[in-house]
Amino acid sequence: MSDVLVQRDGPMTTITMNRPQRRNALSREFLLTLTEAFRDAGDTDALGIVLAANGPVFSAGHDFVDMAGASHADVRSLLQTCTELMRTIQSVPQIVVARVHALATAAGCQLASTCDLIVAAETAGFATPGGKGGWFCHTPMVAVSHNIGRKRAMEMALTGEIVDARTAQEWGLVNRVVPEAELDKATRDLLERATQGSPRSKALGKQAMYAMLDRTEQDAYAYAIEVMAASSQTPEAQEGMRSFLEKRKPEWPA
Amino acid sequence: MSDVLVQRDGPMTTITMNRPQRRNALSREFLLTLTEAFRDAGDTDALGIVLAANGPVFSAGHDFVDMAGASHADVRSLLQTCTELMRTIQSVPQIVVARVHALATAAGCQLASTCDLIVAAETAGFATPGGKGGWFCHTPMVAVSHNIGRKRAMEMALTGEIVDARTAQEWGLVNRVVPEAELDKATRDLLERATQGSPRSKALGKQAMYAMLDRTEQDAYAYAIEVMAASSQTPEAQEGMRSFLEKRKPEWPA
Amino acid sequence: MSDVLVQRDGPMTTITMNRPQRRNALSREFLLTLTEAFRDAGDTDALGIVLAANGPVFSAGHDFVDMAGASHADVRSLLQTCTELMRTIQSVPQIVVARVHALATAAGCQLASTCDLIVAAETAGFATPGGKGGWFCHTPMVAVSHNIGRKRAMEMALTGEIVDARTAQEWGLVNRVVPEAELDKATRDLLERATQGSPRSKALGKQAMYAMLDRTEQDAYAYAIEVMAASSQTPEAQEGMRSFLEKRKPEWPA
Repeated sequence: MSDVLVQRDGPMTTITMNRPQRRNALSREFLLTLTEAFRDAGDTDALGIVLAANGPVFSAGHDFVDMAGASHADVRSLLQTCTELMRTIQSVPQIVVARVHALATAAGCQLASTCDLIVAAETAGFATPGGKGGWFCHTPMVAVSHNIGRKRAMEMALTGEIVDARTAQEWGLVNRVVPEAELDKATRDLLERATQGSPRSKALGKQAMYAMLDRTEQDAYAYAIEVMAASSQTPEAQEGMRSFLEKRKPEWPA
Repeated sequence: MSDVLVQRDGPMTTITMNRPQRRNALSREFLLTLTEAFRDAGDTDALGIVLAANGPVFSAGHDFVDMAGASHADVRSLLQTCTELMRTIQSVPQIVVARVHALATAAGCQLASTCDLIVAAETAGFATPGGKGGWFCHTPMVAVSHNIGRKRAMEMALTGEIVDARTAQEWGLVNRVVPEAELDKATRDLLERATQGSPRSKALGKQAMYAMLDRTEQDAYAYAIEVMAASSQTPEAQEGMRSFLEKRKPEWPA
Repeated sequence: MSDVLVQRDGPMTTITMNRPQRRNALSREFLLTLTEAFRDAGDTDALGIVLAANGPVFSAGHDFVDMAGASHADVRSLLQTCTELMRTIQSVPQIVVARVHALATAAGCQLASTCDLIVAAETAGFATPGGKGGWFCHTPMVAVSHNIGRKRAMEMALTGEIVDARTAQEWGLVNRVVPEAELDKATRDLLERATQGSPRSKALGKQAMYAMLDRTEQDAYAYAIEVMAASSQTPEAQEGMRSFLEKRKPEWPA
């Protein structure tokens, strides 16, 4: 059985972390396999990607078996490999939803936070436990702190405690929380809603969002005006406007 | 009947979008008329501005009649005209409250989000529907994403679905939600509260907020210290402090 | 009786503003005394600092007795002194929790907002009242606006009205709200949770958070990777990982 399962189902690809006995810990090899799975799925005509996990934990983050005793250079390289996975998730043209059924900690919390959207079971939890140990969750907090308020990010970082799914939703980290039995349905439902419309327009939209989100309002407008003006000339934009004006269903160019 | 109605009532000016048959769509001419209305109101001694709308929709955003088939250069120019309206709203010395009674979509959602404050009826809704069409809401998402958390902005952008007024308030996009029958009263009440104090100090305050909000904490302090030190020497700052110390009502210089 | 009381109790130092008759107003001398108290506590082996206050008000902000009639240069210098206190709180190695039992206004609201975490009594409130006077709360809004959404920051800044503790918690400004009788217990409890783990790792973690929070995601990763890789080589990181793998309690190096 592979560590990473990839299943295509209609317009959706599900990438499942399948290293339950290691709590889906993110060893170097596992990070590389996941990154490759996202790149491969990114090259298909799938519209959406679900990142799921098998076992009692969504992902426990880095694998201390790899990390304990590793040199500065090796750790640095591992963190760069991990960040490359994060960048890949945000750069593939598909919309990526994390399906979080259980605990996501440290780099596992970072991984969930990095997906475009999160659907969580009531049994899920989010934590950056480095704060109560000897090695702070510096890189996980990058992803987390870009999604929630500062005092809440500080609380997660400093206490290292588990934030339950409902609280994570109140804080804006999670988009939907449902009973575990409804997790597949809710994940698929949100992904269907998020992948409506022209695939090319949606892919550009997602990628442009990440290019724009950290900019000042003025810089973001300067950027967004150019992207929006250029994309107005695409067949999908024209079809979208014409079908609206003609009150008919749009047909998106392949 | 004009497309934009302007009514002065005591210290408040109400600018009403009055193109109900076009769902207050933001054609170039309409954008220019609105911008002029804000500039004109900005030059008066009014303390506050309400942006309201007539008809079944607050504003449906850009007018696809203008946009379909338009050249890259024309669309770019239209988006710049639209952004100029947004900048004008944030730069006038008056406090601007959007009175949103119904659906605000695409650039109409951007327009509401750009106002200093929003009061919404329970019947209001906010959406960036480009995400489910062929042309993504790139520029509307600039205004929206500067007001709410990232996962929520992604959900609005990608699903294009309507966020109801109560949810928008929970997300921090809206300041007050009331039954539609109380919308005028609630809008006036918030604007009265927001226009207390010295008009000159308030105008500087508003404008300095926008100059400061996207800065790092360190840069924001560097800026705010200079503005606050300089403004300490104004007659209104001195009157504010003296009236406080003398336990009397302040009299603001004209 | 001193204006600033410092009490060490086990791993915690409590710094209490004790100028109740002046509503803990932040005169230049008081700011300097507070800054010195934080620096001194920062040089001890205490793990956490509580910032508390005596009297009916947490702090009313700057002292208008000092400010009214002061020159531009004097006000500028005072604001720099105030900002230096804010920077000190964020740079000491200890975790700092504000224990807010009552009203925190203007620079007093800034002071609470600047602490790493806030525990508030139900009787607490937060306000930046410059907005309803003659001198806008420019510098207080720097600290407040980095913790809450933009529309809410605008509402606080423009109306100057009091945000009660529960609302402040919903907005993400406050971490815990409890009945006043439980304030000491809740403050101590949160600080104990936030000071678990290796003190050196925690101090680095706190300081790195402030260095990272205003960066773009890409810049934040570039920074966090270096800090996290370097800190992997510390005795506390190694002990943390080894004790985890060996399923024993960690012993942090002194």
